[in-house]
Amino acid sequence: MDQNNKSIFETGLDKNAANYVPLSPLTFIRRSAEVYPNHPSVIHGDIRYNWSESYQRCKKLASALKGRGVGKGDTVSFIAPNIPSLFEAHFGVPMIGAVLHAINIRLDAENIAFMLNHAESKIIFVDGEFSGVIKEALALVDQPIIVIDLDDPLFPEGELIGEKNYESFIEEGDAEFEWSLPDDEWEAITLSYTSGTTGDPKGVVYHHRGAYLNAVSNVVSWEMPKHSRYLWTLPMFHCNGWCFPWTLAAQAGVNVCLRKVVAKDIFNAIRDSQVSHFCGAPIVLTMLLNAKEAQKQGIDHEVNVMTAASAPPAAVIAGMERMGFKVTHVYGLTETYGPCSLCEWHGDWDEKTPEEQSVLRARQGVNGLMLEGQMVADPETLEPVAKDGNEMGEVFMRGNNVMKGYLKNPSANEKAFSGGWFHSGDLAVWHPDGYIEIKDRSKDLVISGGENISTLEVESVLYQHPAVLEAAVVAKQSNKWGETPCAFVTLKEGFGQMTKMDIIRFCRENMARYKVPHDVIFGELPKTSTGKIQKFMLREIADGKA
Amino acid sequence: MDQNNKSIFETGLDKNAANYVPLSPLTFIRRSAEVYPNHPSVIHGDIRYNWSESYQRCKKLASALKGRGVGKGDTVSFIAPNIPSLFEAHFGVPMIGAVLHAINIRLDAENIAFMLNHAESKIIFVDGEFSGVIKEALALVDQPIIVIDLDDPLFPEGELIGEKNYESFIEEGDAEFEWSLPDDEWEAITLSYTSGTTGDPKGVVYHHRGAYLNAVSNVVSWEMPKHSRYLWTLPMFHCNGWCFPWTLAAQAGVNVCLRKVVAKDIFNAIRDSQVSHFCGAPIVLTMLLNAKEAQKQGIDHEVNVMTAASAPPAAVIAGMERMGFKVTHVYGLTETYGPCSLCEWHGDWDEKTPEEQSVLRARQGVNGLMLEGQMVADPETLEPVAKDGNEMGEVFMRGNNVMKGYLKNPSANEKAFSGGWFHSGDLAVWHPDGYIEIKDRSKDLVISGGENISTLEVESVLYQHPAVLEAAVVAKQSNKWGETPCAFVTLKEGFGQMTKMDIIRFCRENMARYKVPHDVIFGELPKTSTGKIQKFMLREIADGKA
Repeated sequence: MDQNNKSIFETGLDKNAANYVPLSPLTFIRRSAEVYPNHPSVIHGDIRYNWSESYQRCKKLASALKGRGVGKGDTVSFIAPNIPSLFEAHFGVPMIGAVLHAINIRLDAENIAFMLNHAESKIIFVDGEFSGVIKEALALVDQPIIVIDLDDPLFPEGELIGEKNYESFIEEGDAEFEWSLPDDEWEAITLSYTSGTTGDPKGVVYHHRGAYLNAVSNVVSWEMPKHSRYLWTLPMFHCNGWCFPWTLAAQAGVNVCLRKVVAKDIFNAIRDSQVSHFCGAPIVLTMLLNAKEAQKQGIDHEVNVMTAASAPPAAVIAGMERMGFKVTHVYGLTETYGPCSLCEWHGDWDEKTPEEQSVLRARQGVNGLMLEGQMVADPETLEPVAKDGNEMGEVFMRGNNVMKGYLKNPSANEKAFSGGWFHSGDLAVWHPDGYIEIKDRSKDLVISGGENISTLEVESVLYQHPAVLEAAVVAKQSNKWGETPCAFVTLKEGFGQMTKMDIIRFCRENMARYKVPHDVIFGELPKTSTGKIQKFMLREIADGKA
Repeated sequence: MDQNNKSIFETGLDKNAANYVPLSPLTFIRRSAEVYPNHPSVIHGDIRYNWSESYQRCKKLASALKGRGVGKGDTVSFIAPNIPSLFEAHFGVPMIGAVLHAINIRLDAENIAFMLNHAESKIIFVDGEFSGVIKEALALVDQPIIVIDLDDPLFPEGELIGEKNYESFIEEGDAEFEWSLPDDEWEAITLSYTSGTTGDPKGVVYHHRGAYLNAVSNVVSWEMPKHSRYLWTLPMFHCNGWCFPWTLAAQAGVNVCLRKVVAKDIFNAIRDSQVSHFCGAPIVLTMLLNAKEAQKQGIDHEVNVMTAASAPPAAVIAGMERMGFKVTHVYGLTETYGPCSLCEWHGDWDEKTPEEQSVLRARQGVNGLMLEGQMVADPETLEPVAKDGNEMGEVFMRGNNVMKGYLKNPSANEKAFSGGWFHSGDLAVWHPDGYIEIKDRSKDLVISGGENISTLEVESVLYQHPAVLEAAVVAKQSNKWGETPCAFVTLKEGFGQMTKMDIIRFCRENMARYKVPHDVIFGELPKTSTGKIQKFMLREIADGKA
C-alpha cells in the first residue's frame, strides 16, 4: 500500500488509449468488413451486399445524418419490416452517437405520434407500407422532423411521403466517413418502446456496453458458428431483433431479410438461402408446424430455432423437433436486450423420452453467460422462494444486459430497479436444479377459491388437444370462486364440429379439477402488434364487458 | 438537451446494482457450478472433480487466504505445473481481491526471488518438484512470506518445505464462503513476469475486465463448444494459460491436467480423456509430429490445436493437418492476455493446395473479435506501412485485452503505450488482405548489405529440409556485410552425415541468394524457460563470444 492506501496494483496502471476501448458492437462491423469484405452480409430479393458494401452503406448513412445536423443523443426513428436499411441503421445511427428508435409496424398513428414526441425524434425513415399511418402520426408531432422514404423494391406500391428516398439520402454521405466509438460505453445506442397493455408506452434505452455483450452472449448461448445464415423472422423493431444485427456483424453472418412472416416465405428462404438459424415466438413455430406439407419439403440441412416471448407449449417444441428443427428456448424481455436467459441443455437429457424432453425444454432455465444474476423471489421483500418447483415468485435479473432504464420516466425506473434487481413482472417457480419456469405474468394469474392457477399450464394442456390451433386462458370474475379460468380457443381447419364440452372433458382428463376452465369460447384470438395474445381484451370478453 | 447540456439519454439513466456488474471471469465458475454442478471440471491422474466441487474448493481457498490476512491487492504466488490447485488459484485468489502470480517453473532461484520481492508476495504455494529452487529463493526474500506445499499425489517424491500442504490449508476455509466481485472491473486479477532476455523481468498486470473478455474471445475465435475437453499442454504460468482457466469455466469444460509436456503423455491423454482441444507452441507440435508412430495410434476423434508463441513453420502446420489435427494459428504476447489475434480462415482457401494453405495459415492474421485495433506501423512515427506484404514495420495493438501495465515500472509503461498503441516489439509485413505476418522480433532481424533479412523466413525454409528437426537463424557480425545470417540446426536422428554445405545448397535452391546463411552450426538449441529459442545466446556463439 502506498500513502494513499492504494495497492501497488492500482498505482500508475490507469486506463489509456491502448488498453481501454469502450465496448461497442460498432467494432464488429468494422472488423467483418476488414476481415471478410467479400463475404455476403445481406440477401433481400435480388439485392446482395457483402460486408464491405454493408459497412460502406452504414458509413454513408452516418455521414448523411451528420450532414443533416443529427448528432449525439438525437433520436433517429425507423418504421420498416426486416429490410436491409433497418439493419444498416443499427450501425449507421450510433456511429454518430445518435440513438436508433425502431418503431413497431403494427402500431396506430396515435401511439406512434406519442413515441415520436416523447423521443424528440429528429428524423424518421418510412417504409412505403406504413406511409399512411405515418402521415397521420406526423400531423400530431410537435417538433420539426425530416421524413425520408424507405423505397423498398420488394414493396413498390407504397405511397412516398418523404423529401427523398433512402438511397438518395445516403448518397449525401461519404463511404469513407470517419466515425467514432462512443466516449463512454454507457452511452445510449437504441430506444424501444414496450407495447404495454395499460398506460403510456415506456421507452427502453440500451447502451453500447449491453449491446456488445448481449450480441456476444447470443453467439455463445447458441454456439453460433462464423458465417451463420440467419433468417429475419423476428422483427428488428422488437428488442432490436434480440441484438442479432450486432451478432451477425460479430460473426460475419448472412442477414436473410424477410418482409412478411408467412410459412411459405419462411420455408422458401430456408431452402433457397440455406438458412441455418432463425428466431421466433412460439406462434411462429405453431404456424410452421401447421403449414401445408408441400411447403416443408426439400429442407435437409440443420436449422436452429431460438424461441421465446411466451413459453412455448411442450407440444409445439416436440413438433418442431420432429420436423428436424433444433429448438433452443431462451427467455428475456425488452428490458433485457431480448434473451438474457436460456434453457441450457444437459447431455443426459438426451436419454429421456421425447415428452420428458419437451417438458424440460419448455422451462425458461438459467441466466445466460453474460447475465450475472437471476432469481425467483417475493416481489415485496426480494426474499428468494424455495427451489422446489412449487412456490411461486417474481423473476428478478441483474447484469450488464439489463437496460439503461426507461426514457424520461424516473418513477418507472425507481420501481423497475428497486432493491438493486430488475423486476420482470413475470411469475415463476424455481426448480431444484436452478431452472426457472414461468407460470404467468402477474396480471394473468387466475386465483380461484384461493388457489393460484397458472393460465400457462392450462394452455399447455389445451395445446395437446389435436383440434387446437391456438389457446389462451384468462380469469373470469365469479361470485362463488372469486375467479375461474376461461379458455379461448382457435380450432384447426376441419374441426368445426368440436364442442365446448369436448374441450372441458379433455381438460378434466389432463389436469387437476380446480384448474379446468369453466368456459370455452371459440374464435380468433386478438393479438398485440408483436403477436402477443391480448389477454386484457379476452378478460373483457369473459366478463361480458366487450 | 437539458440545462447541463446532457441529452435526454444521459439524464436519470445512471448505473445501478441491477444494470451494471463489473465484468469478471469469477462469474463464470459460479454459473457453471450452478448450471452444471455434476459435470466434470478436472481430471488429474485418479482425481476427478465436478464443477460444484471445483467451485467449493475455490471458495475454500479464498476463505483460507482471507483467514491468513491476505486481501485486496496482495500478491499470492504459485509455482506448479498444470495441476488442479493452480487452476483453482485462478478463481480462489481473485475472489478476495488478491492477485495471482504464477511463476514460470523453469526459472532459477535468483530470478524467482527478484519476482517475490518485486511483487511483495504474501504467500507462496510450492509444488514438490520445485521446492529445491524455492528454498534457495526464499533465502533472498525480504518480506515475511507464508509457504504452503502443493503435495501432488502424482509427484510424491518432492521435498516438502511449507508449514502444511494445500489440502490442509484449504480446510481452514469455508466451502460456502461469500466472496465478492471486484468493486471495479479494472482491478488487477493476475501478475505474470515476462522472461525478457535483458534487464529485470517485467511484471505484466491483467485486470478482471480483460480476463473476462479474452476468456470469451477464446470461445468465439475457436468456436469452442460447451463442455470442450481441454488438455493442459500450455503452462498456466504462461499468460495464465492464455486465459483458458476462465474460458473453461465459461464453457463448463473439462480441464485435463498434465504435469509434463512429453509426446507419450499427450497422446495418451488425448486418447484416454477424449481431448478435443489443446494449445501449444510450435515446438510442441514438432515434438508430436516426430513422435513414434505407435504413440499416435488409436485417436479417431476431432482434435483442435491452437498454436502461437512463435510463428509455426508452414511444414509443421501441414504435418499436423496430415495427422488429422485441426490447427488454428493465433498470435499474442504476455502483454495481450495471450492470443489477441488469429489467422481467420476463409472458406475458399479450402480449395487451395496444401502448400498454399500452410503458407496462408502460417500468417498471424487479424485482430480477434475483442481486440479493437491492430496495425503494422513505423515504430517511431506510428505511420502505418503499406499493405503490400513487403514493407516491414512494428505490430501495434489497441484494445481491452491489452494489459493494465507493467507493475511498478512507469518508464516501461510510458514506452509500451506511447502514442496510444501498445508496442509489441514484433516486426511484420501487412498483406493486402489485412493479414499480418511476423517477420521477426526487432532484435532478431539480420541486416546484410543494407537488405533486411527475416530470420523467420530463412528458418521456414530450413524446416522444409527433411533432416532438420529445429532451426534458428541469427545475425553474425561481418566486416564486409555488416551482418550475415548464421544458421543453427538440430538434425533429426539418423541424419548425422549431413554437412554444412548440404544445408547451404538446399537454401540456395529455395531462397534469394543474399538470404542464404553464411554459416551453419549443428547442435542442440538453447531455450528460455518458456521454450523460446534463446537467440541472444546464439548470437554470442555466432560472434565467437561464447
